[in-house]
Amino acid sequence: MAKFMDVHTGFIGVTAQQLKEAHERDLAVEAEEGVHFEHAWLDPVRGKVFCLATGPTRNAVIRIHERAGHPTQEIYELTVEV
Amino acid sequence: MAKFMDVHTGFIGVTAQQLKEAHERDLAVEAEEGVHFEHAWLDPVRGKVFCLATGPTRNAVIRIHERAGHPTQEIYELTVEV
Repeated sequence: MAKFMDVHTGFIGVTAQQLKEAHERDLAVEAEEGVHFEHAWLDPVRGKVFCLATGPTRNAVIRIHERAGHPTQEIYELTVEV
Repeated sequence: MAKFMDVHTGFIGVTAQQLKEAHERDLAVEAEEGVHFEHAWLDPVRGKVFCLATGPTRNAVIRIHERAGHPTQEIYELTVEV
């Protein structure tokens, strides 16, 4: 299982409740691709969201986000961490 | 205390040992600004590093990274998380 960070832009002014609902849409379908979204962080002033996920492949993570309604192509495979 | 994600580019081919050493240079001076770098993740293929930190201000985090030798201006304040 690999680890990924994906980045979303344009989420300016998004609320805590909206982030929670978006995250829950990922959680609702993620198991079908063997993905798990562990954490999401939002900067609502600059409109950035960072999602930390585990999954079999980069494309599996991309597909879950697409199905959940918030696609991104900016995704990084995290092979090293401290 | 606020939470921040900063992003570094150009770290292509960086090793686990090099990331550890870079992180330790942050840890060595971070207390002087009331900052703590909690975690760093690296994609050495695309050369991206993400650092999760707590600290009093965005500029405090920027200054510690500058002093540690890996400056970045790409930093986000994370006021919402799930």
